Amino acid sequence: MAHGIPSAVSGVNNSLDRSAMTPTQTLAQFVVTHRETDLTVPVKREATRSLLNWVGCAVGGSRHETVERALAALAPFSGPRDATVLGRSERVDIMLAALMNGMTSHTFDFDDTHLRTVIHPSGPVASAILAYSETRRVTGAEFLHAFVLGVEVSCRIGNAVYPSHYDVGWHITGTTGVFGAAAATGRLLRLDEQQMIWALGIAATQASGLREMFGTMCKPFHPGNAARNGLLAALLARANFTSSDQAIEAPRGFANVLATARRYEEITEHLGSSWEILANTYKPFACGIVIHPTIDGCIQLRTDAGLRPDQITSIELEVHPLVLELTGKKTPRTGLEGKFSVYHSAAVAIIDGAAGESQYSDDRVRDAAVIRLRDSVNAKVGAGLHEDQARITIRLDDGRVLEKFIQHAIGSKARPMSDAALEAKFRGLSDGVLSNDETDRLIELCWRIETMGDIADLARAAVPAAAVGA
Amino acid sequence: MAHGIPSAVSGVNNSLDRSAMTPTQTLAQFVVTHRETDLTVPVKREATRSLLNWVGCAVGGSRHETVERALAALAPFSGPRDATVLGRSERVDIMLAALMNGMTSHTFDFDDTHLRTVIHPSGPVASAILAYSETRRVTGAEFLHAFVLGVEVSCRIGNAVYPSHYDVGWHITGTTGVFGAAAATGRLLRLDEQQMIWALGIAATQASGLREMFGTMCKPFHPGNAARNGLLAALLARANFTSSDQAIEAPRGFANVLATARRYEEITEHLGSSWEILANTYKPFACGIVIHPTIDGCIQLRTDAGLRPDQITSIELEVHPLVLELTGKKTPRTGLEGKFSVYHSAAVAIIDGAAGESQYSDDRVRDAAVIRLRDSVNAKVGAGLHEDQARITIRLDDGRVLEKFIQHAIGSKARPMSDAALEAKFRGLSDGVLSNDETDRLIELCWRIETMGDIADLARAAVPAAAVGA
Repeated sequence: MAHGIPSAVSGVNNSLDRSAMTPTQTLAQFVVTHRETDLTVPVKREATRSLLNWVGCAVGGSRHETVERALAALAPFSGPRDATVLGRSERVDIMLAALMNGMTSHTFDFDDTHLRTVIHPSGPVASAILAYSETRRVTGAEFLHAFVLGVEVSCRIGNAVYPSHYDVGWHITGTTGVFGAAAATGRLLRLDEQQMIWALGIAATQASGLREMFGTMCKPFHPGNAARNGLLAALLARANFTSSDQAIEAPRGFANVLATARRYEEITEHLGSSWEILANTYKPFACGIVIHPTIDGCIQLRTDAGLRPDQITSIELEVHPLVLELTGKKTPRTGLEGKFSVYHSAAVAIIDGAAGESQYSDDRVRDAAVIRLRDSVNAKVGAGLHEDQARITIRLDDGRVLEKFIQHAIGSKARPMSDAALEAKFRGLSDGVLSNDETDRLIELCWRIETMGDIADLARAAVPAAAVGA
Repeated sequence: MAHGIPSAVSGVNNSLDRSAMTPTQTLAQFVVTHRETDLTVPVKREATRSLLNWVGCAVGGSRHETVERALAALAPFSGPRDATVLGRSERVDIMLAALMNGMTSHTFDFDDTHLRTVIHPSGPVASAILAYSETRRVTGAEFLHAFVLGVEVSCRIGNAVYPSHYDVGWHITGTTGVFGAAAATGRLLRLDEQQMIWALGIAATQASGLREMFGTMCKPFHPGNAARNGLLAALLARANFTSSDQAIEAPRGFANVLATARRYEEITEHLGSSWEILANTYKPFACGIVIHPTIDGCIQLRTDAGLRPDQITSIELEVHPLVLELTGKKTPRTGLEGKFSVYHSAAVAIIDGAAGESQYSDDRVRDAAVIRLRDSVNAKVGAGLHEDQARITIRLDDGRVLEKFIQHAIGSKARPMSDAALEAKFRGLSDGVLSNDETDRLIELCWRIETMGDIADLARAAVPAAAVGA
């Protein structure tokens, strides 16, 4: 009766018998009752890697035009400037910080991927709870725990409605991200079970984001909005703002209205023993994932053979059909178009040994040496190749022929990026935003998130000193 | 090229030939180019009546628990306190004011109805533009014009996707309201055509609100959220934040993702000559519309015959089948349950001659005289009756039998509420929030919105003096 609502109406089952409970209740009870000490080492390790990758992406994206325009529009309406936009000197209210960090971290489309659902899970969840954590002391361990729970909620709801939900046209990162953000923030707010049910409901009724927006500034807006609205949901629920108690599974709930098929056991089974964060992956390259095997192979050939571009007479690629369909642009004119060109990507991989944001600048796409090598690339469909496979054949002017077959691209679940590779990616993103010393310190803090006394120190360490007071 | 985007990419057709344009472009161009001086007198008159009704509902709902909880949760994060929550003394930032006024005006479910789509059109649109109008001088005429355009956008998009969109489970007031709020605010912001297209796109990708939430605090949250997010969309678009140019009609756009059928001609045909605001209606009674013919008839019998409850031996109702299905509660226990009881509603209509919020208090539902009369009511399905019809037969202790057949209930399009009835409704809502003098002045201002020099004066007049500085 704590909320002034009879339990018969509120529908909360106080027993731990999950078989009698709905998916919404089960999930809420799990988020409220799971113990921090029950997180395993591998789960905490992968969560830490996810957060490191997220911080790097957010810092890296923080100066993009998308971000400048959004801040110009919205900062004048900011409330108490308690929170940090990672990589920038402006302080803004926690709602706007959640929006901005969710947006920056997805701006380059370089953030993490839960491959089974193509959810980018960290942005909405981490952005919401980091912003909130700047208003009251949250330990690193508490933060990490809430983050894991939020990712679990987003990805399990995603598992339940994928692929029909995505096929209908929903940007699943936004639509499921709002649940994860609400759950993680709700955990930090110490919501009780009924309030957590309401938080999930208030999240459900804000779920939005159309795939039609891909290629526009609205794409990164989606995870930002999910963070903002998830945070809002948790704050409203704390004040006993009510919603449906069956927001996910009711006939007119999320899973029925926004998907044509659903499997609720994906939400409820093995809760607490199986963790979706362990299925998270990180992109090594700043472009569509279908080109990654090609880039991986080109970089390996370059490194192994000490290749110089001027030795090369031709590059033959055998790839999955989707590569030509999605990234078949032979003569890209802008950096963005370069991301949709397997030809440009192969060329920069060989010349630079990398395919980060700086390999997809307008300048790099127009560079004469890059264009010369790009024009020597041919690509065709390789029979029987999977999406994470590619075969590269390079002919040199001395008659030698170098070959490389990529069985699983780097960054796939079978060949995850190493900690060192994640750090290198972080440095590439942070370059030009933070000084080397600032980057070193921020990376060091990310690795020891679990032991931090106050997670807000992480946010503050992501602000460039050169811009402080600017 | 004003936005740094080639016109071939932006997709804007600068000609006025609408046949070659998409629904999104057509709507955007219409909102940007329509002239204030081309509004007809009947359109302005109905818009003024809609706004009067909206202000009354917002003031009336301003002290509800829903509102208290939302404000408690969110006011601490408010930005510059430029804007008014109608009926209250707190000032909040414009985003939060848009949210709150959209919420208060729908809290009693007593706001206006565009019957064809069951959209409550005023809340999202008026709440967004009134909040914005407190940051720069907007004349009443300009405000009225933007309001009409916003309602037009919401209702035309609603017409295009109703009923399938509603049947899928979407609360159409929220999902279409965000477009109207974006369009109306965008007009006040003087967006150009490309920016207006983006505003509609940023609105589309936030469209949300599940019917599953009916009966919870999230129902009034939907129009509030639509106002807030529509305002956000317009502000982002002004800063050239991009979205899809075909947000409504693209294969993965709003109309395809959130509905199973659509008719785009509802959006594009007779723009500027046919106005949806003329189809707006107002509820005379604070309960579900299916009981309105019964209440109407009971009040008329009471007035015509000077009925006293103690004369009555029985009341027979013949009604549409939906009345018993939706409002067949014989022994309501709370005020809210009373709204779902045709028996209670008939009883209070005869005793009080009214069915406003105060007839649906917990006290009134438990009143002995009300219960006695309620228990004398019988209701059955009347063959061939339409939804806005009812037949009432009252037997008196002196043997007389009084009968009334309601052909069209008051408040329907065929029998609209008079200006005087709208004023009486306003006073009923405002009672206990504003003083009589304040109410008089606010009503007077509403009637002359079109000639007001600064519409912000209207917002300020809706703040109770007794609470100022509280």
